[in-house]
Amino acid sequence: MQRSIKSNPASKAKFPNSRKVYISGSSADIRVPMREIDQSPTVRDDHSAENPVIQVYDTSGPYSDPNADLDIRRGLPGIRNTWLQRRDDTNELSNVVSAYSSSRRNGNGNGEFMGHNSPRCAKENRNVTQMHYARRGIITPEMEFVAIRENQNRRRYREEILERRHPGVPFGAEMPGEITPEFVRSEIARGRAIIPANINHPELEPMIIGRNFLVKINANIGNSAVTSSIAEEVEKMTWAIHWGADTIMDLSTGKNIHETREWIIRNCPVPVGTVPIYQALEKVKGDPAALTWGLFRDTLIEQAEQGVDYFTIHAGVRLRHIPLTAERVTGIVSRGGSILAKWCMVHHEENFLYTRFAEICEIMKAYDVSFSLGDGLRPGSIADANDAAQFAELQTLGKLTRVAWEHDVQVMIEGPGHVPMHLIRENMERELQECFEAPFYTLGPLTTDIAPGYDHITSAIGAAMIGWYGCAMLCYVTPKEHLGLPDRDDVKNGVIAYKIAAHAADLAKGHPGAQVRDNAVSKARYEFRWNDQFNLSLAPDTARDFHDETLPKDASKIAHFCSMCGPKFCSMKITQDVRDYAREHGIDNLDDAVAEGLREKAAAFSATT
Amino acid sequence: MQRSIKSNPASKAKFPNSRKVYISGSSADIRVPMREIDQSPTVRDDHSAENPVIQVYDTSGPYSDPNADLDIRRGLPGIRNTWLQRRDDTNELSNVVSAYSSSRRNGNGNGEFMGHNSPRCAKENRNVTQMHYARRGIITPEMEFVAIRENQNRRRYREEILERRHPGVPFGAEMPGEITPEFVRSEIARGRAIIPANINHPELEPMIIGRNFLVKINANIGNSAVTSSIAEEVEKMTWAIHWGADTIMDLSTGKNIHETREWIIRNCPVPVGTVPIYQALEKVKGDPAALTWGLFRDTLIEQAEQGVDYFTIHAGVRLRHIPLTAERVTGIVSRGGSILAKWCMVHHEENFLYTRFAEICEIMKAYDVSFSLGDGLRPGSIADANDAAQFAELQTLGKLTRVAWEHDVQVMIEGPGHVPMHLIRENMERELQECFEAPFYTLGPLTTDIAPGYDHITSAIGAAMIGWYGCAMLCYVTPKEHLGLPDRDDVKNGVIAYKIAAHAADLAKGHPGAQVRDNAVSKARYEFRWNDQFNLSLAPDTARDFHDETLPKDASKIAHFCSMCGPKFCSMKITQDVRDYAREHGIDNLDDAVAEGLREKAAAFSATT
Repeated sequence: MQRSIKSNPASKAKFPNSRKVYISGSSADIRVPMREIDQSPTVRDDHSAENPVIQVYDTSGPYSDPNADLDIRRGLPGIRNTWLQRRDDTNELSNVVSAYSSSRRNGNGNGEFMGHNSPRCAKENRNVTQMHYARRGIITPEMEFVAIRENQNRRRYREEILERRHPGVPFGAEMPGEITPEFVRSEIARGRAIIPANINHPELEPMIIGRNFLVKINANIGNSAVTSSIAEEVEKMTWAIHWGADTIMDLSTGKNIHETREWIIRNCPVPVGTVPIYQALEKVKGDPAALTWGLFRDTLIEQAEQGVDYFTIHAGVRLRHIPLTAERVTGIVSRGGSILAKWCMVHHEENFLYTRFAEICEIMKAYDVSFSLGDGLRPGSIADANDAAQFAELQTLGKLTRVAWEHDVQVMIEGPGHVPMHLIRENMERELQECFEAPFYTLGPLTTDIAPGYDHITSAIGAAMIGWYGCAMLCYVTPKEHLGLPDRDDVKNGVIAYKIAAHAADLAKGHPGAQVRDNAVSKARYEFRWNDQFNLSLAPDTARDFHDETLPKDASKIAHFCSMCGPKFCSMKITQDVRDYAREHGIDNLDDAVAEGLREKAAAFSATT
Repeated sequence: MQRSIKSNPASKAKFPNSRKVYISGSSADIRVPMREIDQSPTVRDDHSAENPVIQVYDTSGPYSDPNADLDIRRGLPGIRNTWLQRRDDTNELSNVVSAYSSSRRNGNGNGEFMGHNSPRCAKENRNVTQMHYARRGIITPEMEFVAIRENQNRRRYREEILERRHPGVPFGAEMPGEITPEFVRSEIARGRAIIPANINHPELEPMIIGRNFLVKINANIGNSAVTSSIAEEVEKMTWAIHWGADTIMDLSTGKNIHETREWIIRNCPVPVGTVPIYQALEKVKGDPAALTWGLFRDTLIEQAEQGVDYFTIHAGVRLRHIPLTAERVTGIVSRGGSILAKWCMVHHEENFLYTRFAEICEIMKAYDVSFSLGDGLRPGSIADANDAAQFAELQTLGKLTRVAWEHDVQVMIEGPGHVPMHLIRENMERELQECFEAPFYTLGPLTTDIAPGYDHITSAIGAAMIGWYGCAMLCYVTPKEHLGLPDRDDVKNGVIAYKIAAHAADLAKGHPGAQVRDNAVSKARYEFRWNDQFNLSLAPDTARDFHDETLPKDASKIAHFCSMCGPKFCSMKITQDVRDYAREHGIDNLDDAVAEGLREKAAAFSATT
């Protein structure tokens, strides 16, 4: 196994005509990554005009930095270490606290990670969450980092777009013209956004999840005993962030969960989420009834010490909710939800995640692990959408949100699942109301059940809509959903489908800056700058390959036609004729004439109808 | 060429566990096709329960009928011939009227079709449109046919779904519990729906386009000089209808337009649409300025005599609208729109399609060709959405709709294109208002411009939404949009993406019957009836292939687990435990307890907030 791990997982795929840049913050150790895409000039007749460099949000981490010195056995550099040290509210422990981690480090695990960090923990009586700092008025480097990251293209937006087009009306948002570190702080303080950033994940490039920021996407990865090695999972992670995943969830099962996670986190520049109950269940050999609070607690500490940034905790699956699922078409489909439902029923007791919730908060705040409050009773089919079980759980999650906030622990709320379009808005509205505007994080939702094999599409529809309505993060669905484990192509197709959904939502929310990239692609397309069109797109390689299937020659990439309409037809030429005509006849006069004509016509209509 | 045409184009792909059935109408020659999918029983412990046969809408025509005697050289049987004869308002002509058709039949064309029909034309002073009959209170066999076709699953819906779930609120619809022939007639009479059914297309299985019926999808096919033969285009048509295309548009260009279209129509059981200006332009060697009304008129007659069911006519591209496009990011992107804009500018004259519109109506009503009023000024980018040019044209299309309706000619209205989510609803609302509820037929719309190679997804999002809002037919977009001509896989992926969008819209509109298929898939999924899940899905082959990549053995298709969760975890088992628990403790009492608990919690919340 060691041998396969040695290979550098950095994706060989590079974005063409692109350059990694860093924008500096108020101190030298705040360096915010961006990707810049160069464009070719617009050439017409005898003159040419430059086209601007387009800057895009970059989730790919040091893997796309040609100057980075990478070795997955050592992990990524700890860019947050100085920030953590400066805060001086954590201790570096010489040993892990988790009993399980201890036993694995003492030789029970395979594929042990070489470059262990000493875990950090909050000093006694200290709370190290971003929310805690925010509520005390402190702007952390993490907050400044995300402010710079989110502020991208806003100036260009004002120059290029705001003047000519009517922006969308944000759904209950208070999106400012400029994202400032202070705005980030205030959103975190009131719980409307989170920065998932475990103190034991210093390799993290901070990002923010909240509906007044860019819509984010999550990609699930995770091995299964049969199909993947640790190296493959690390490779899958780098592949997902290459295409734009903002966070990843490690849903591994099997024997080497602990070590796989260690390798992933040490090499991962985006937040890592997990569902700790999965590993707890592995530890009791798959028997839900054998789960105990002590075992689960040690698992939380184990994962917190490793650096997991957010935990899915199914504390809303209460004993009293379970009968509400009895008449469903698809019962309980959440794996975590089922495990806890079974535990509750076998013991005839309330869910221990619910009864021990305050104790869980104590752990979360000692490491700044964020809650992703799990929707264990989410609908698994259109038929079960928005039912009593789902909404009873949501109300419980709202109650738990308040408890977590009393501990200054960051929270987001998980949502469905399978919901037809006309029932999606109710999900968002209820979540905002019952969970006090904590960020919503949904799986799709899938808008129909009839297309297994195409559920990245059934769900991208619902994801785009709920993103527009205010959902902060969208968990991707791959084409293999319901059918099998995603391979490399599935991960790419899932991520791209969700980048589309998130970006469509940003546009619909009127997010300043979002449209800059659309306009650049459209202008390139219209001017037959084929390479620019490819380079500016979400998947340049796919766009180029599709084009080359019909017109493979390089010459055709600067030709003013394409295979759809052929060489004798060029809409750009026509538009130039239109522009010349307008100029000759005086565009202003014609505009007036048109307006006059419309008024006449309107009057004629009124008369006839 | 003849040799390749001889091969039977009927797709080799068959839907598994499926059976072609026909539902008879009031006379023996009304036989409405359906596909029935058999399911396996639900087996648990010692007993099993049957699952019902699921009936689905079937666009595939005789190609999926094992009893059909097919020969593409003869074409499909003319199932409407007796209906047309009975109406006794048409003449069968011994020769074609179109001068161009005449010249092609006299040997100038390649690949001439063997089994020419004699073209029909309305008798003098007779109007043979479905709208004309409808307005006179006549229910045609075409109307009865579509009533039976649309009525599918409504009874099952009432039994299975209506009682347990709240249906969606249709957007301005007046959808009845049962589709009757009289309802179809009334919708056609008021122009809110159309049955595109040229009297020269007797092979057609009638279908209806209108927002109180199932949402339909169109697939574009069409050869280009380089890449396709006539046989390939016929094959592409059968492939598109196999996957569910409700209509097809033949957008062929090049030398053999006339013959390609003849072969397609004679073998096509769904309505065929065209953009006649494309062929007119071919006839003048690609020079828009050389277009004349006489030439265009002959092209309309040529295609009407062949049996084209609807024509895209860009009569809304008025001279006065053209300057409104001058400042656009992407100018005029509609091919037809550009051709006519150029013609207008070169001649400094109003668009002849606009000035000759009444004469065009005279042709349309002699063959019952429906208008698809083209949106030549549709936006080609997010930046240009909902602008003055687009809406000025829409208003003109409304005016033309009234003119067409004065001639009892059926009309639908084409719409965009590229529209961000928050601007989609305005498109639908304006269309309904300004075009008096004539059916809307949109291309997508694409909700972002940044994903060439994935525009079936960017546009499926917009298509699903506008379908929900009331759009009657969605023109598919393939992954190759903007990049090249679609191949076989692209056609399939485009059709499936649009079946998803249309079905998601049907669900959201609360269309009675739509959810029957979703519930069947979900129940099969939940009961681990893998084969049923595959067979009931839109693309059984894809679903099966994806499953088999991870668990290829046949045995796993009856196993109660999948590769996602593995053999030791089964959510069906958990739900059975839940059901047993609920039964033991009395589900009603528990429900009461839950309700009581929620009330308590709500009270507690009110106190704290």
